[in-house]
Amino acid sequence: MPELPAEPSRRLYPPPSKKVCRDGIYGDLELPLSGPQSRPYVLINMVASVDGRSSVSGKASCIGGEEDRRVMRRIRSRVDAVMVGAGTLRAERLNLGLDDPDIRQPLAVILCGSGPLPLAERLVQNSQDTLLAIPDDIPYNLPSLRRLRQETPARTEMLRVRASGPGRVDLRELLAVLRSEYGIRHLLVEGGPALNRALIDAHLVDELFLTVAPKVLAGEESTIMQGGEEREPQDLTLLSVHVSESSGELFLRYRLKNQKSLS
Amino acid sequence: MPELPAEPSRRLYPPPSKKVCRDGIYGDLELPLSGPQSRPYVLINMVASVDGRSSVSGKASCIGGEEDRRVMRRIRSRVDAVMVGAGTLRAERLNLGLDDPDIRQPLAVILCGSGPLPLAERLVQNSQDTLLAIPDDIPYNLPSLRRLRQETPARTEMLRVRASGPGRVDLRELLAVLRSEYGIRHLLVEGGPALNRALIDAHLVDELFLTVAPKVLAGEESTIMQGGEEREPQDLTLLSVHVSESSGELFLRYRLKNQKSLS
Repeated sequence: MPELPAEPSRRLYPPPSKKVCRDGIYGDLELPLSGPQSRPYVLINMVASVDGRSSVSGKASCIGGEEDRRVMRRIRSRVDAVMVGAGTLRAERLNLGLDDPDIRQPLAVILCGSGPLPLAERLVQNSQDTLLAIPDDIPYNLPSLRRLRQETPARTEMLRVRASGPGRVDLRELLAVLRSEYGIRHLLVEGGPALNRALIDAHLVDELFLTVAPKVLAGEESTIMQGGEEREPQDLTLLSVHVSESSGELFLRYRLKNQKSLS
Repeated sequence: MPELPAEPSRRLYPPPSKKVCRDGIYGDLELPLSGPQSRPYVLINMVASVDGRSSVSGKASCIGGEEDRRVMRRIRSRVDAVMVGAGTLRAERLNLGLDDPDIRQPLAVILCGSGPLPLAERLVQNSQDTLLAIPDDIPYNLPSLRRLRQETPARTEMLRVRASGPGRVDLRELLAVLRSEYGIRHLLVEGGPALNRALIDAHLVDELFLTVAPKVLAGEESTIMQGGEEREPQDLTLLSVHVSESSGELFLRYRLKNQKSLS
């Protein structure tokens, strides 16, 4: 299915400002080829309202508009794998792939804990390979895991990863395995807030893409990062700003500074 | 005290993109002269991190940089009054005025509830007039109110306003009084999150200014709007985007859409 024509959009920063051509926002996105050695180059992409909310009634899907959806797909097309936490999958039906079934799909990685994983109900798999990363402290005969083994669809693999805490995958270990055993050089993370936060805290994120939707949501919904203890602020470098001139959505791209290790 | 030379900054949107001249970001800010009849034209100005946090350990002062501080003063110079909630005053020492004591200062309005109000300790008053808006259901002999009456500094007035709930000023009534009795045509609100939220929910806000600081703060800090029940999202129109090229701070200006009443 050919991509719909992009809405009029403009790169605002860095100067000079210019209309975005037919490939759309991030159609010319370049990611570093030589990133860290021990893990993939990691991007986070999220959408939030002007008041910082990233979900409505627990779901993120209604915050961004059509242009945000296209941009999300376009970033996915540049990476080898797309990862989400199981909570994000529990919250709503997800498609972690690209619209065109004929092009190479990124690997879908679901970060699991001890909670239920309604894979068949919630994940639109199409032709996409899926990897379930499961902490190795979860007993093999846990009902949710047993059910998963029985019902796991084709093209789905279960990977046991060292636990860093009860029911929690060691993220550094997972990223190392994704790089060394699955050849993942660029990994896109699409939430939820707790996974984003854990990755940021572990200094495992290289870039942050944020769509600012022109809305106020208020309520007590989550932000793009949530949970954990208070930490030192981390500084970002603004790389670019794009705008969708029809919707007023802003697309911000930042690099994380002061990374502890790029090796 | 003359204003420091502004850091290099640029208007990104609307096009054409251009360097901001010596008056700095919003140096050419124009606010509508004919706004609503029954209240002032209301602006909210806040600073938040990329992950939507508007405070660190309860304080907002460390999120924005020098340019944000200058922009905040510049917006204040265009309004007749600057309002904050008492919680914001309790959180940290505040100066709601302008740096130059020789120019006309906006009226400082403090929205009070039944909690303590450490006015002398927290508010830098200089030559600024201050109005304390106090709900009329709070007993006249409440210790905090009695202390306030005894210690109230010069140039400070107490205004009793109809309560819309226990210890809560009726915001619509307060705005009507500010307009009709104090001649306030443009009112700037600088938080906290609960006051912003209450004003937005009551459709009493015309514009929202947001500085996006290039930081991730995470933790469990508040966002720019907080509290209350879940509501219908409200749509905004993006009016302008500026960037401080040295700090990477973004300055977003939005208009609230679909206002119930501009009359």
